[in-house]
Amino acid sequence: MDPRTGLPVVGMVGAGQLARMTHQAAIALGQSLRVLAASPDDGAALVAADVVVGDYRSLDDLRAFASGCYVVTFDHEHVPGPHLKALAADGVLVRPDAAALIHAQDKAVMRARLTELGIPCPAWGDLSETDLVTFGAAVGWPLVLKAARGGYDGKGVWVVSSPEQAAPIIASGTALIGEARVPIARELAAVVARSPYGQAAAWPVVETVQRDGICVEVLAPAPGLPPARVNEAQALALRIAGELGVVGVLAVELFETTSGELLVNELAMRPHNSGHWTIEGARTSQFEQHLRAVLDYPLGTTTPTAPAVVMANVLAGPDDVKPASVDERVHHCMARWPDVKIHLYGKGFRKGRKVGHVTALGSDMAEVRERASAAADYLANGEGA
Amino acid sequence: MDPRTGLPVVGMVGAGQLARMTHQAAIALGQSLRVLAASPDDGAALVAADVVVGDYRSLDDLRAFASGCYVVTFDHEHVPGPHLKALAADGVLVRPDAAALIHAQDKAVMRARLTELGIPCPAWGDLSETDLVTFGAAVGWPLVLKAARGGYDGKGVWVVSSPEQAAPIIASGTALIGEARVPIARELAAVVARSPYGQAAAWPVVETVQRDGICVEVLAPAPGLPPARVNEAQALALRIAGELGVVGVLAVELFETTSGELLVNELAMRPHNSGHWTIEGARTSQFEQHLRAVLDYPLGTTTPTAPAVVMANVLAGPDDVKPASVDERVHHCMARWPDVKIHLYGKGFRKGRKVGHVTALGSDMAEVRERASAAADYLANGEGA
Repeated sequence: MDPRTGLPVVGMVGAGQLARMTHQAAIALGQSLRVLAASPDDGAALVAADVVVGDYRSLDDLRAFASGCYVVTFDHEHVPGPHLKALAADGVLVRPDAAALIHAQDKAVMRARLTELGIPCPAWGDLSETDLVTFGAAVGWPLVLKAARGGYDGKGVWVVSSPEQAAPIIASGTALIGEARVPIARELAAVVARSPYGQAAAWPVVETVQRDGICVEVLAPAPGLPPARVNEAQALALRIAGELGVVGVLAVELFETTSGELLVNELAMRPHNSGHWTIEGARTSQFEQHLRAVLDYPLGTTTPTAPAVVMANVLAGPDDVKPASVDERVHHCMARWPDVKIHLYGKGFRKGRKVGHVTALGSDMAEVRERASAAADYLANGEGA
Repeated sequence: MDPRTGLPVVGMVGAGQLARMTHQAAIALGQSLRVLAASPDDGAALVAADVVVGDYRSLDDLRAFASGCYVVTFDHEHVPGPHLKALAADGVLVRPDAAALIHAQDKAVMRARLTELGIPCPAWGDLSETDLVTFGAAVGWPLVLKAARGGYDGKGVWVVSSPEQAAPIIASGTALIGEARVPIARELAAVVARSPYGQAAAWPVVETVQRDGICVEVLAPAPGLPPARVNEAQALALRIAGELGVVGVLAVELFETTSGELLVNELAMRPHNSGHWTIEGARTSQFEQHLRAVLDYPLGTTTPTAPAVVMANVLAGPDDVKPASVDERVHHCMARWPDVKIHLYGKGFRKGRKVGHVTALGSDMAEVRERASAAADYLANGEGA
């Protein structure tokens, strides 16, 4: 309890853009997010009042951070499970808890559990148990290798055509799972939230547009997705949230196959890039909802605020091509698109880095998408439409 | 320039709820608002990373604060004019500047200037120059006395029926103006923003509902206001902004008389209570717009996001009647109204204190108003619908 406000204190481990945007939402709720930052220059550390600098891999640092928090939550899934259990044993409320979070930390555990629940996934095998040649013979080549832990934004994922091509990856000693390569029409995400009380809420299902394994755009709602598929995706995400005991936001990344089937790709148990559009595009943003959930407050309405919403990531381009300053880029972007909402994460613009996002709203998806994409491109590259 | 972000630093003198909400908007723009707080417990100081504790009446404190800022702006109008001029002489960008801000600081100066510009105001007199008996004979009794400086929320305003009743107020030595008591149908506000470049933008004109001299609700747009009157109010506010050289948000409080005439009541040159609805209710909030203006960025679209938007202030009720904790109040308010947006200012709930506001959106003004009002009442009093 913060004696100045009479409200419980929420601590978030990690101080990147997710914590930064969660802090924005926290302010409205009378809160001030406490963050555990790796560096005082982290995006959230630049804007929050209650910053602890420390290492999320150190139990001592986590304990010092958790002291005084009503609940501890996360802007990433990298805190070691034993540390989470130790905190819980200390009496710290950890949400989501270690038993839920392991499914966002370890793809082998996640796949095993989802398979047990009968939730559709690509055919898969745990390569610490199953021989690659046997697995390849069963699902066909090429197939996909994934690091069981630590991958993100296309890192830790390899498409391999033969055991020979896989050999150096296997030799590196990384724990791997194998997955059948499925014929993907597009990628979707079903984002939901669940509270300890058991209340749950789903946002509209979105399409996530990927380039080189990195999400570049999110279209809300997913264009042309039949209502039955929307319901299926939301029901699937809500079921996973309930079965795994998730508290907070759960993002379920999905493949829509060329035959229209939905398969689970990955899980994230925190605000997620596929939900950034909700800041302006839904009555309750994923950041506010995550706070409501971890505080066990009633969840907010997830109704969209416009028929078509597009979020486009700002992935910094090479700075030497157009050396416009960030300030100039913002200036010109605002002049050209006075209704596009800009979100910058307080990061230096280094090539390929996700430094912000923009959101456009309207009634025609194609028009809205063009506007968001052009604005993001302009911010990223200092040039554009 | 902040070397970590490549963006200019905005400093705001004052760290109340206006700075708190400006900081929220600053985060999206890649900024982190620097605030000059009277106390580390001020609403904005609880949530901002860059807090300087000091006295806005001390030129030394202002100078220390301004050092490193690209531009200095305000969440109140109490900084002495000579200090503002001294900062400008030091080379600090002060927006709005002393020459503009004096019109929000001194009602005699404001009335004289607006009269000179031919802008409709109640009949008035500067009681340091005009005798009260003479003034009363001209405009009739009862009349209104206002402290030329420092009044707010009904403080510094007296309705007096005779020179005898006015005597103790005059004897207190406060500089006063007199105003004719006009037949008020309701109060309106025209909120606009202006940039140094000269770009300006107006939000829809709103009705501000007052109780005991304090704004309790804002209805956007003002119900039933004829389009010609809307245009008149916006044109008047834009003209004042231009003529006075305002940079940032300008709120023009207006009386609508029983004969439908518009008269200027007061001016504020900062984000204003009558603009809080814009956070969710307009594409660009007054807080973001104020930042855009003081940074001389292009202004954002002011289009409303819903046909009817109501903001209701949370004025803390007596805590001894229903001793529900703030946390319980928030919990129950969220359960009852999952689509109402809550904004708390990080203040303790003491009777009569403006501790937050709520915003409801919809299509039917009466329904939206009922929802906002009930939610605010519940938060304020721990009981309700």
